[in-house]
Amino acid sequence: MLLSVRAAASYHLPAESFVLLMVEPPLQGAGHRLLEERLTTTPTTFSELRADFHGNVQRRLMAPAGTFAFEFTATIESEPNSSVPLDAPEHPPQQIPAEVMSYTLPSRYCQSDLLARMAQGEFGRLKPGAERVLGIADWVRSRVEYRYGTTDSLTSAFDTATERVGVCRDFAHLTIAFCRALGVPARYVSAYALGLEPPDFHGYVQVYLGGAWRNIDATYEGVRPALVPIAVGRDAADVPMTTLWGSGELLHQVVEVREVEG
Amino acid sequence: MLLSVRAAASYHLPAESFVLLMVEPPLQGAGHRLLEERLTTTPTTFSELRADFHGNVQRRLMAPAGTFAFEFTATIESEPNSSVPLDAPEHPPQQIPAEVMSYTLPSRYCQSDLLARMAQGEFGRLKPGAERVLGIADWVRSRVEYRYGTTDSLTSAFDTATERVGVCRDFAHLTIAFCRALGVPARYVSAYALGLEPPDFHGYVQVYLGGAWRNIDATYEGVRPALVPIAVGRDAADVPMTTLWGSGELLHQVVEVREVEG
Amino acid sequence: MLLSVRAAASYHLPAESFVLLMVEPPLQGAGHRLLEERLTTTPTTFSELRADFHGNVQRRLMAPAGTFAFEFTATIESEPNSSVPLDAPEHPPQQIPAEVMSYTLPSRYCQSDLLARMAQGEFGRLKPGAERVLGIADWVRSRVEYRYGTTDSLTSAFDTATERVGVCRDFAHLTIAFCRALGVPARYVSAYALGLEPPDFHGYVQVYLGGAWRNIDATYEGVRPALVPIAVGRDAADVPMTTLWGSGELLHQVVEVREVEG
Amino acid sequence: MLLSVRAAASYHLPAESFVLLMVEPPLQGAGHRLLEERLTTTPTTFSELRADFHGNVQRRLMAPAGTFAFEFTATIESEPNSSVPLDAPEHPPQQIPAEVMSYTLPSRYCQSDLLARMAQGEFGRLKPGAERVLGIADWVRSRVEYRYGTTDSLTSAFDTATERVGVCRDFAHLTIAFCRALGVPARYVSAYALGLEPPDFHGYVQVYLGGAWRNIDATYEGVRPALVPIAVGRDAADVPMTTLWGSGELLHQVVEVREVEG
Repeated sequence: MLLSVRAAASYHLPAESFVLLMVEPPLQGAGHRLLEERLTTTPTTFSELRADFHGNVQRRLMAPAGTFAFEFTATIESEPNSSVPLDAPEHPPQQIPAEVMSYTLPSRYCQSDLLARMAQGEFGRLKPGAERVLGIADWVRSRVEYRYGTTDSLTSAFDTATERVGVCRDFAHLTIAFCRALGVPARYVSAYALGLEPPDFHGYVQVYLGGAWRNIDATYEGVRPALVPIAVGRDAADVPMTTLWGSGELLHQVVEVREVEG
Repeated sequence: MLLSVRAAASYHLPAESFVLLMVEPPLQGAGHRLLEERLTTTPTTFSELRADFHGNVQRRLMAPAGTFAFEFTATIESEPNSSVPLDAPEHPPQQIPAEVMSYTLPSRYCQSDLLARMAQGEFGRLKPGAERVLGIADWVRSRVEYRYGTTDSLTSAFDTATERVGVCRDFAHLTIAFCRALGVPARYVSAYALGLEPPDFHGYVQVYLGGAWRNIDATYEGVRPALVPIAVGRDAADVPMTTLWGSGELLHQVVEVREVEG
Repeated sequence: MLLSVRAAASYHLPAESFVLLMVEPPLQGAGHRLLEERLTTTPTTFSELRADFHGNVQRRLMAPAGTFAFEFTATIESEPNSSVPLDAPEHPPQQIPAEVMSYTLPSRYCQSDLLARMAQGEFGRLKPGAERVLGIADWVRSRVEYRYGTTDSLTSAFDTATERVGVCRDFAHLTIAFCRALGVPARYVSAYALGLEPPDFHGYVQVYLGGAWRNIDATYEGVRPALVPIAVGRDAADVPMTTLWGSGELLHQVVEVREVEG
Repeated sequence: MLLSVRAAASYHLPAESFVLLMVEPPLQGAGHRLLEERLTTTPTTFSELRADFHGNVQRRLMAPAGTFAFEFTATIESEPNSSVPLDAPEHPPQQIPAEVMSYTLPSRYCQSDLLARMAQGEFGRLKPGAERVLGIADWVRSRVEYRYGTTDSLTSAFDTATERVGVCRDFAHLTIAFCRALGVPARYVSAYALGLEPPDFHGYVQVYLGGAWRNIDATYEGVRPALVPIAVGRDAADVPMTTLWGSGELLHQVVEVREVEG
């Protein structure tokens, strides 16, 4: 399918600031291809591209004091998002590639070490592989209440395991933490998603099963129609859409994802 | 039944210290009566009795530098511990006495406010009253692993809800937190218990159902044969067996509870 | 001085609810006297008075589904708030009355046990007594940023010790936790205060020094002109202005404290 | 100087297990060179080398059920460890290389986001660069008590900021968290260190100042004579010396680091 994506925001910066943007999906991903894209930053025009540990592209720029704005628009050809194949197996650790192994470790928001017994107790009897991972996502969706404004950037999987409320980011963190606690590599994906209400940036999970990264979205029963990954990381700490060095103030933000005719 | 109880401990105190002891059960309780008791403290002989908020008797004394020891022995007539009657009802808040109402509030180790959604999600569909409270105790017993040395005096119900391991104190705190989160008054009881292995002081729960405080012990499947309460409080912070002002070192401690012939 | 106090709020209740109000100061306190007071509740008119552990008066009532409102107005003669006398001494534990001793224990929001080493490291060298307690309040005021909307009802002293931001409630909790960690009894006071900007209910601290409870307000440099205590407790969990059983929604709230001519 | 290093451990494994070892320093580092090294694993002899995100070499092997042991010995030429040059400057973010930037993000044990205001309050007025980083290390060393057995693998910088007790790992995590909170890239180093008492694996910090990674060891006043890095990561979660998949039990472990004659 063909998606039209637009993300824009503006900030007031009290001083010249270094800005990192991670809003541009890779030109070519496992399930998408950018047909056209355009990133404009105002008033800064110069920017530099760099890749981080995870292979994400970061746009780095200096923004002068005053109002700073960016707008990203793209037309993206995306395969429909598909479910994890039910026969996708877990890998024993000796078969997990070294670059994937890091995604079994605990991280800032996914304290899989603290959740080890809970994961074993709740999911230890499920069949390893896709069935268990889908069981985890079901558990999270049915036990955690989706509600805006209840959590913030300090909320972690350890909190959500007990507090049972949050947004997509929290659902993803808890799912990731449970998967890692059971030895399944899992990572956080910041994304554009079709059909979010209200529209916003999205966060979901990829697990490594059957030799590939598979999409899991615990906020949705069934399969979201389209997910376009922007960046991947151990958790949301690795993939902020915008990072300002200094004390800017967000003035407005908008995200739009629409399906368009071919 | 007739119980013989002995609790003794010794400490090295680097300086003269104020000591609070809470090792003596009330002379007469809902289900027990002290036939004889004796508390000796060495070398201090003078001590003073005071009651706290909860009506517990505290023995207060000054112990000089050096070795301080106490020994408490008692013969106690105890009714067999009984299960919560299955028809004991919950009280709507307007029927909860004011002095009981405090036991619906969150406390140091029982953060019922943080567990509100989890309690509602796990137990909200159970029938209010004894059935729900027993369901909570079953849940705690089957989901939390009993293991010495895994938790300490900083561990709280919020931790145990996720970490799923602990000792009697942790089992009690989590049970209390869930009960309070559902509006059921619940308090912590430090106690002598028959049949503990290894022998030690014990901690369990009392819930207020059907107009009376009822014993709940999430560490035991079925009904412990005998429980003699020493003191009650919001949680373990309120009922330490021994409190030393200053930096004493525990040298040894022993607790024995035996059934004796009438 | 003479104060005119008004506190009013309204709620939407989806069902008949039990309500606890703690908005009425005691008729006569250490530093104030109510000359006239009036509490109206709409539509409920019946209510019952009860006292809790701490001696606070709670108004208990049943409110039908729909809009529930209360309004409390009072004229209060208040002594000017005074500073802690600089020579007010700390008490060794053996001189602390039993009913005061409970305020040395850790509580839900004041985890003095977790803060023991920090308290000793930061304040251990200050002179015991008023000087040390005032040093603690100064530390809190200068290290913690006062900012609305940064903390919520889950924030505790353990968080504030590190996160260094909050409102009056958080300032009070951290001050209390440090005091208790050093053996000084400390309690939370909900109050009406003159000169708050914006006007609101207030929370401050009382410490037990020199045989009496003394006011400490870490949110204010110097001495607040007037503080009228409503209720005292171990921390804010004990003294909510309003408690609704069930899921009411706050529609509006107003608090006014003005000085009036005699 | 010339160092002789030996690290050995044995485990009981109830089942065949995958094992990751990270005990071998890189052959050539910024300040050391391995003259000879030998890693023996018993009974497993086959193992595979892989590199992770951070460039660390991991030895991966399958160990059969029963007793598994490894022994690593090496002779290492090490430059004396040196202090951070006092004129080493901080870099503005636009000058931080992309591969270094990840070390400014919060991680499992180094919640720099939670410590932002505390770091600013305590160290915001120090001169940026080496002076500030050394000020942080001094603060940690003088405020945190070094004591074995007080913390465990769940303890994080957020805990240590308040609890003020721990071991080398905790000192490192807190130092890292403060540095990152102030925008200074900081990473955790597992290491062999000369002169540790008792001998053990060591953990310390590297900060990125003046275009290079510099050693900071908050557990030591002055400059430790020799530090040989084994592996680097965001925090201790990334660089475990041994990782067992499954439930092995440590039987014994020994670490020795001695200076030898050239």
